[in-house]
Amino acid sequence: MSYFDAASSAPLHPVARQALLASLDEGWADPARLYREGRRARMLLDAAREAAADAVGCRVDELVFTSSGTRAVHAGIAGALAGRRRVGRHLIVSAVEHSAVLHSAEGLVAEGGAATEVPVDRTGAVRPEGYAEALRADTALACLQSANHEVGTVQPVAEVAEVCRAAGVPLLVDAAQSLGWGPVEGAWSLLAASAHKWGGPAGVGLLVVRKGARFAVQGPVDERESGRAAGFENLPAIVAAAASLRAVRAEAAAEAVRLRELTERIRTRVPRLVPDVDVVGAPTHRLPGIVTFSCLYVDGETLLHELDREGFSVSSGSSCTSSTLTPSHVLRAMGVLSEGNVRVSLPPGTAAADVERFLAVLPRAVSGVRQRFAGPAPAPVAAVRQDSLVVDALGKRCPIPVIELAKVIGNVPVGGTVRVLSDDAAARLDIPAWCEMRGQEYVGEEPADRGAAYLVRRLS
Amino acid sequence: MSYFDAASSAPLHPVARQALLASLDEGWADPARLYREGRRARMLLDAAREAAADAVGCRVDELVFTSSGTRAVHAGIAGALAGRRRVGRHLIVSAVEHSAVLHSAEGLVAEGGAATEVPVDRTGAVRPEGYAEALRADTALACLQSANHEVGTVQPVAEVAEVCRAAGVPLLVDAAQSLGWGPVEGAWSLLAASAHKWGGPAGVGLLVVRKGARFAVQGPVDERESGRAAGFENLPAIVAAAASLRAVRAEAAAEAVRLRELTERIRTRVPRLVPDVDVVGAPTHRLPGIVTFSCLYVDGETLLHELDREGFSVSSGSSCTSSTLTPSHVLRAMGVLSEGNVRVSLPPGTAAADVERFLAVLPRAVSGVRQRFAGPAPAPVAAVRQDSLVVDALGKRCPIPVIELAKVIGNVPVGGTVRVLSDDAAARLDIPAWCEMRGQEYVGEEPADRGAAYLVRRLS
Repeated sequence: MSYFDAASSAPLHPVARQALLASLDEGWADPARLYREGRRARMLLDAAREAAADAVGCRVDELVFTSSGTRAVHAGIAGALAGRRRVGRHLIVSAVEHSAVLHSAEGLVAEGGAATEVPVDRTGAVRPEGYAEALRADTALACLQSANHEVGTVQPVAEVAEVCRAAGVPLLVDAAQSLGWGPVEGAWSLLAASAHKWGGPAGVGLLVVRKGARFAVQGPVDERESGRAAGFENLPAIVAAAASLRAVRAEAAAEAVRLRELTERIRTRVPRLVPDVDVVGAPTHRLPGIVTFSCLYVDGETLLHELDREGFSVSSGSSCTSSTLTPSHVLRAMGVLSEGNVRVSLPPGTAAADVERFLAVLPRAVSGVRQRFAGPAPAPVAAVRQDSLVVDALGKRCPIPVIELAKVIGNVPVGGTVRVLSDDAAARLDIPAWCEMRGQEYVGEEPADRGAAYLVRRLS
Repeated sequence: MSYFDAASSAPLHPVARQALLASLDEGWADPARLYREGRRARMLLDAAREAAADAVGCRVDELVFTSSGTRAVHAGIAGALAGRRRVGRHLIVSAVEHSAVLHSAEGLVAEGGAATEVPVDRTGAVRPEGYAEALRADTALACLQSANHEVGTVQPVAEVAEVCRAAGVPLLVDAAQSLGWGPVEGAWSLLAASAHKWGGPAGVGLLVVRKGARFAVQGPVDERESGRAAGFENLPAIVAAAASLRAVRAEAAAEAVRLRELTERIRTRVPRLVPDVDVVGAPTHRLPGIVTFSCLYVDGETLLHELDREGFSVSSGSSCTSSTLTPSHVLRAMGVLSEGNVRVSLPPGTAAADVERFLAVLPRAVSGVRQRFAGPAPAPVAAVRQDSLVVDALGKRCPIPVIELAKVIGNVPVGGTVRVLSDDAAARLDIPAWCEMRGQEYVGEEPADRGAAYLVRRLS
């Protein structure tokens, strides 16, 4: 089995396992107690906080341990917003943040606040100017991830932090995907991270609030962790998280070079091995271990199953693999193809041979899925009038609308148009992306009785 | 070392340890994923939920795992209040709930809601009538612990649940201290518990919301755990929590008999071995492993240090041991002596020999502390007029005000009075308690320039 989904959750680092086992025996007592077991627990907690603060590059009293990265994000945003309520209730986020950030923004809007989403380019990166333009007099907080979890694109955090600092607005950085690789540069004010993303155990997040950043804890009072993370300290997991962060950092420089070379193999060879593939995300300014591509005419869920059968665990931002009907908000914001989407995120230690085997297996897996979808009869061509066709793909899910479009485009003359009727949310993303990949013109979207009509003009 | 503070946190049960180790290898992946590691994680999560629901006596889809018992309480109260906002914003709690419940109540009041504290008797038990009297037309929720964490008193949950049910008000039970001993009886609507209290790992709480109970999740949306517990599932800890709950339950009946006999030894023998001791809490309707007593003329923190030096880890509700200046709210609500307070809570498996050694060590430890406090010169007797004395204990902390009172009471004739001036919050509890223990009359409290004056009449 090759587990290539480290961006969801990394396997436990051996050092995390050792530290967890050791502190199951030493660190189960309440660190607030004065007796021996309590003092021992307090010492372990203090040492873990020192190690984590050192890795983050912050003061010990600026860092608390939360029960998850999600909790760190929720508590960080809520506390920072409340701390600056007098300034206003406007929040800035990038369009490609983790759902923990976006759901916090939705919550704020539902309560009468306001949120602005800063767009990204086709590589998934924000521009610092995007944050500058989004700033308002009532902006209480801005949020930006250090690097994207779906495509690996590294964000210009230091530049955005500078834009915010100049405006007197704190920046919260979601460093979940990158903290194992190194500290986050720049004059950020708050930082959140998640231990299971760097090979630590589940159940531990970090929340850092810089001295001077206004912060008002929300929710019922609790005396633990400076009042910022309610609940009994999960000490064995905290100790394991801190120890593994230190261990992962010690290996980071060498491992980054190695993984970057392996993901580069995928980036360059997949488009040669598999036709009609779009590699998405920044080509160089990216995390070492993540590479994401989308395959035309492929159902993401079926491809994941094929790869799983071959022993590869990967994830997908295609709409057809999730319980929702919409493709990943990251791919949507980037405006790239979402069908047949595959994210490969290599855990540290991944063997080159496993990547080679993946590259050997992938073409067969994709063509197998494509054959299955090419099987059914062509969609009914609803109407032919002169040099335009209408394809009725209503009720059909990704990747069928794009497949039907590809099948009929040759039936109109160059300069002619195809109208695709579709009520699948992925079509809005995938039909323009198909046009760009195939050198056809995407004219635009027209309202329709059901779904929408997507107009394509044949150019070649 | 004898760890006698299981009510704070129980040492990890061997089954929890085994299950945790096993699922560190099997259960680190995201259970929402479709590949092999994800499916395996999902199966472990489902099995853990079934085991926990079976132990609670609820449906599988009524139970979610939270990151701590505190989080379960906070989320349970917030969700239940929000679910019944149309009814009103009144909350009923007992005066001896865990701080997680009381802090939630304070938060509600701070936001414009209302809370009523139901008083307890001298054993720490509520009366069902107390809840009946507290119910209002706008009562959204009532909360009651299954058993008290400081004195072990078992509460009449089924009766209170019936009172609430008749009024159409849901009851949330904080079962943190009792769930390892057995399910909570009665028609409760919500239940919260904490794994590290029954020998499971830290980082896992349970929140049960009965079908039919109105519940509106608060905070940002998160799809995990039915939307009721945000953050990546801490699967190894969840598996360990469920496995250890089952194991602890299998041993509960026999262990309850054994521990009850051991705590009974402490209950009956401590007052014989140590003069001026008040054993507090219900004598029979109590948890098997908890026994609490208070020692006159003793500083709680010093006694804890003495016992720690002798190898016993216990806790105390005395004001002098905590970072606050007030004694435990539980002892205060019970109206019992708080000075020199010691809670012994035996973990399952405690050896009888260790309890015997505790009983051998305690008298020496108490008398040592008392000698230290008897040392200083008597407090200045501020004024003597006829048959009344004034003792100025201003600026002096527990147990000094009571010690000074005891020193001078013999200096007034029977029928005469002593006024103790004190600004220590513990005096309000300890001076009346001393009077009751010593057969003197506590006349009452009078306002004073600083602190208060406590008036005592000599009866014997």
